[in-house]
Amino acid sequence: MEKGQSRIIIENLTPEIDAGRFAAKRIVGEAFTIMVDIFGDGHDIVNGYFLYKHESDKKWSEIPLTEVGNDAWTATFTPAKQGYYSYTVEAWMDHALDWHHGITKKAEAGQHVNVELNDGTKILKDYKSRASKTDAKLLDQLIKLIASESTYAEAVELACSEELELLFRKYPAKNFALRYPRELKLWVDRKKALFSTWYEFFPRSASQDAGKHGTFKDCARLIPRVSAMGFDTLYFPPIHPIGELNRKGKNNAVTAQEGEPGSPWAIGSRFGGHTDLLPELGTLEDFKQLMATANDYGIEIAMDFALQCAPDHPWVKEHPQWFKWRSDGTVQYAENPPKKYQDILPIYFETEDWQNLWKTLTAAAIYWVNQGIRVFRVDNPHTKPFVFWEYLIEEVHKINADVLFLSEAFTRPKVMHELAKRGFTQSYSYYTWRNNKAELTEYLTELSTAPSKEFFRANFWPNTPDINPYSLQSGNESMYMQRLFMAATMNSNYGVYGPVYEYIDHAAMPGKEDYYNSEKYEVRLWDWNKPTRVRELMTMLNRFRKENEALQFTANIQFCDVDNDNIIAYLKISPDGRNKVLMVVSLNPYGSEHGMVKLPLNALGIHGGQTVAMHDLITNQTWYWSQEYNFVALQPNLPFHLMKIN
Amino acid sequence: MEKGQSRIIIENLTPEIDAGRFAAKRIVGEAFTIMVDIFGDGHDIVNGYFLYKHESDKKWSEIPLTEVGNDAWTATFTPAKQGYYSYTVEAWMDHALDWHHGITKKAEAGQHVNVELNDGTKILKDYKSRASKTDAKLLDQLIKLIASESTYAEAVELACSEELELLFRKYPAKNFALRYPRELKLWVDRKKALFSTWYEFFPRSASQDAGKHGTFKDCARLIPRVSAMGFDTLYFPPIHPIGELNRKGKNNAVTAQEGEPGSPWAIGSRFGGHTDLLPELGTLEDFKQLMATANDYGIEIAMDFALQCAPDHPWVKEHPQWFKWRSDGTVQYAENPPKKYQDILPIYFETEDWQNLWKTLTAAAIYWVNQGIRVFRVDNPHTKPFVFWEYLIEEVHKINADVLFLSEAFTRPKVMHELAKRGFTQSYSYYTWRNNKAELTEYLTELSTAPSKEFFRANFWPNTPDINPYSLQSGNESMYMQRLFMAATMNSNYGVYGPVYEYIDHAAMPGKEDYYNSEKYEVRLWDWNKPTRVRELMTMLNRFRKENEALQFTANIQFCDVDNDNIIAYLKISPDGRNKVLMVVSLNPYGSEHGMVKLPLNALGIHGGQTVAMHDLITNQTWYWSQEYNFVALQPNLPFHLMKIN
Repeated sequence: MEKGQSRIIIENLTPEIDAGRFAAKRIVGEAFTIMVDIFGDGHDIVNGYFLYKHESDKKWSEIPLTEVGNDAWTATFTPAKQGYYSYTVEAWMDHALDWHHGITKKAEAGQHVNVELNDGTKILKDYKSRASKTDAKLLDQLIKLIASESTYAEAVELACSEELELLFRKYPAKNFALRYPRELKLWVDRKKALFSTWYEFFPRSASQDAGKHGTFKDCARLIPRVSAMGFDTLYFPPIHPIGELNRKGKNNAVTAQEGEPGSPWAIGSRFGGHTDLLPELGTLEDFKQLMATANDYGIEIAMDFALQCAPDHPWVKEHPQWFKWRSDGTVQYAENPPKKYQDILPIYFETEDWQNLWKTLTAAAIYWVNQGIRVFRVDNPHTKPFVFWEYLIEEVHKINADVLFLSEAFTRPKVMHELAKRGFTQSYSYYTWRNNKAELTEYLTELSTAPSKEFFRANFWPNTPDINPYSLQSGNESMYMQRLFMAATMNSNYGVYGPVYEYIDHAAMPGKEDYYNSEKYEVRLWDWNKPTRVRELMTMLNRFRKENEALQFTANIQFCDVDNDNIIAYLKISPDGRNKVLMVVSLNPYGSEHGMVKLPLNALGIHGGQTVAMHDLITNQTWYWSQEYNFVALQPNLPFHLMKIN
Repeated sequence: MEKGQSRIIIENLTPEIDAGRFAAKRIVGEAFTIMVDIFGDGHDIVNGYFLYKHESDKKWSEIPLTEVGNDAWTATFTPAKQGYYSYTVEAWMDHALDWHHGITKKAEAGQHVNVELNDGTKILKDYKSRASKTDAKLLDQLIKLIASESTYAEAVELACSEELELLFRKYPAKNFALRYPRELKLWVDRKKALFSTWYEFFPRSASQDAGKHGTFKDCARLIPRVSAMGFDTLYFPPIHPIGELNRKGKNNAVTAQEGEPGSPWAIGSRFGGHTDLLPELGTLEDFKQLMATANDYGIEIAMDFALQCAPDHPWVKEHPQWFKWRSDGTVQYAENPPKKYQDILPIYFETEDWQNLWKTLTAAAIYWVNQGIRVFRVDNPHTKPFVFWEYLIEEVHKINADVLFLSEAFTRPKVMHELAKRGFTQSYSYYTWRNNKAELTEYLTELSTAPSKEFFRANFWPNTPDINPYSLQSGNESMYMQRLFMAATMNSNYGVYGPVYEYIDHAAMPGKEDYYNSEKYEVRLWDWNKPTRVRELMTMLNRFRKENEALQFTANIQFCDVDNDNIIAYLKISPDGRNKVLMVVSLNPYGSEHGMVKLPLNALGIHGGQTVAMHDLITNQTWYWSQEYNFVALQPNLPFHLMKIN
């Protein structure tokens, strides 16, 4: 039997992910709002607190819940520290508020309430026992007024006062209070988890000299360029020794020619494995120097964490039990029958030695954290066990809660969500293939509403070394600008596989979304100084993202009606309501489009007929809009507006 | 650390109510379908079972899950017994199916699979250890074929065979299998929980003689009438002694005149309390005789269970601690400040003596179960603690799982849902106030979809002694027929406060939804033999409900498009697909309406152009429809079609 005197019901606390199995996510300073259903039997007044505590706190902090109708209650708190918070809800039937409410209603109706006043003495004495000295005085005063019939009028006045209600709310008796049955978790990251701007290039292509393999020192010379373009995260494909056995050649040829560098994702050779560096790039000292230079420019290096081995990776000999052996005595290579990938050995996570395996892999990540890495881009995490990632991320976070993990899982939605639940900070997303207005609206709506928004943070990449999307293969500059613009303004996390994008290097393997002459298999030479319109746009967008807080969030997106399916418009407003930007994008890279955009007056807090200045940050033009529906016209040459609303 | 070798994910098992805190509900023979997300890392084939067991079973029964796309899996079972079932899901990465799949794909691609065959020997030996003698033979045969190079072709053929796949599915190894983290509950009722037809009258008005208080014997004489009209449940307002202190008079007068009978809901007097009978109605023997007569006619008597006391109820003296005492030494009466209800004392559930209180109240219910009562209509359950109801219903069900509880909670949605979660079989509903097409469609959609449909069974009453809805106060016969028709055909449980409805006794207290000269406060005399069109309709509808299985379910409702907002059309199909009925109702009681009804061809399994016979059960007319959109016209005189589709 439950404690029979407790009559309160506390249900449906949200966010709650899988009955509390997983944590919701926020960044430091980002508001966290909960909703919960609270009610009791009968008509008694109910009341409750939202409780939260940081993992370093011993005591719960309390926030009074506010009723929002239909038995739903809410509270908001803003986490100030990184790490785990716990949260739950406590509620009770509030007899003191009931008494106050009843006596007030009766007094208003002109009823004599002497008995009611006397009924309250017990409650008042109870509250007095918890009250501060000052507050106790008021309670004492009321007890005395009630005791004497001659002070009836004063007693009624004080009993019905708002002052008394506030005291009752300050020292609740919490009679027969209950807690929500579960304590839930919130994980709080640093700001970059939600607002990050990524640039990717291959370190081996960083040289300015034709035919020369780039080095960390070459990379360091490019840092000012990346910084000037406004990026804060520089992601490198793997920088570890590349396997020599079964090495792939140019354009994914099954066999490499003499001198070909191979794919950096085929990790491990006689030069070492996951905690070693490719000799051609330089030494650990060089790499640390590069990280230091980057940090000076406000850039963090994101390391690729790709848990797979070339056949000559040292682990194959040192830990044969971490690989799957076939009946012919060979190691099982990667397969997707009937396709075979003989150059890569997957790790055998079902090994009986899984505990040592997990420890070693985790130690590899921690090794790089100790060298200064704070961001990992994790390669194909969905081909390794989810429980393993949960362990690894948890262990790394014990060492340093700053570390961010970007999941490179281009796969089914539930699998991508699971990785986020298990701890991945961000995830690559379907943005790369969301092209028309309906697709984009649906996808952004999913990302910006519960349950997704509570734990899944997308990162929008218009391209990657693995994906030269069909939409970009035409090489149409307007399309490149449009796709970049939306990535940077729809989502607070975005990234770009840089040089290829800036220079619209769009050649593809026939019929595939793979780049032709991909840097994955060869060293490329880029004219890093050549200016392009796309590069100029990147630079502007990154600046506007820094200057406009509204663009540093994703869940604040609101789509605006446009009477043209080739124009998409969306509004973002900063949490404090001060920064407001409206984006209007033409999805037609070949011709002009026009239409009427509906300004959401309510969201903007303006009334019909009020004039607002729409300042286009890109062209520096200003329009004055005073209608709900406003005319826009866009050309392929500059297919968008980014308008700050004043 | 979780067991690191287990790579399977099992999430989002539905139905699951409040993380498994509450049971889903079904009736015996009603299909129970679950959905669950199952997936693993990588591309390995996953597989799983739905597990269930009745509370009387020791072992789990297993049903293979079927994949339905997007990592969702499903299974259906049909409970055969009343009482509690447990259910959960078990899943694993299926290495045997993987091996079978891989070898098949490779062989199809013309690859040599000798190594793969040999890799499988271990798997085959493992399966052999679990297989029946016959099945082991086949496995043994394959092991032998693999062992010899000369039988390579036969080995490949058998390894790729469907026969082998079926064996793998029959004896899964379940390597590193996991279970869904919770075992969930399903409560299975007898059929009446979902399909019931209620009639209500006041026993004291059962007499045929003016000025005479009706008796149980008078009631027994009305049983054949109720049975002839097709009702299966006869609900009486409370039949216990009525309080004499502060008794209410005609039309809710504060003071009763000499000889006035009072409200039956003011329970308890010098003649006894909740386990006693009002002397004017007769003896316990009379009541048992009435129940026996009713049962002979296939009718069950539903008893009102109203947990409140008149001031002269014996419990007030015997158990003063079960009531709230005021500072002036009086008992707290019911209040909704500033309104006062001095004739009723609420029970004080926060009493320290709550355990004795619960036991005594539960014993009262069990007393009547022991006298033969199987259906309770519970008065105002939302003013008593939810935990108490959960206890009481559980205890009663331990004695007899046949007992049904109808919740008379006309209150906020979450409160009504909570009572259902805590065990109430059925609930009065908002149907009484859902009048137009949009309201009805929205409400029925809510009731017939998850989460509501899993645990909340509505009962549709067009009226009750407490509610003479505004829509019926005009006394328009077409409106009475329309409201009755929809109650009986939209929802599988419906009831009517009978004589008042049949005779369109529509007079209301001015400005209120209360009946004028309500039977709640006086004895009425009815001419039980007078035929009316409404009574004739009731009789027909109840017969059609019995004859058409489609009408015995609610969640099977499908609304059909009609190009007229004054016409609502809905289709119901029986679980076996054989019984199909289409209802078309005009919501305009004052004029004719016509429109085009869209027949949902897919749901009916017919193609465009195919002719179906639409047989109106009420008029015996038949129309032949061969289009998707079909013309209907309705008059206030008979504002609906009930068409059986052949």
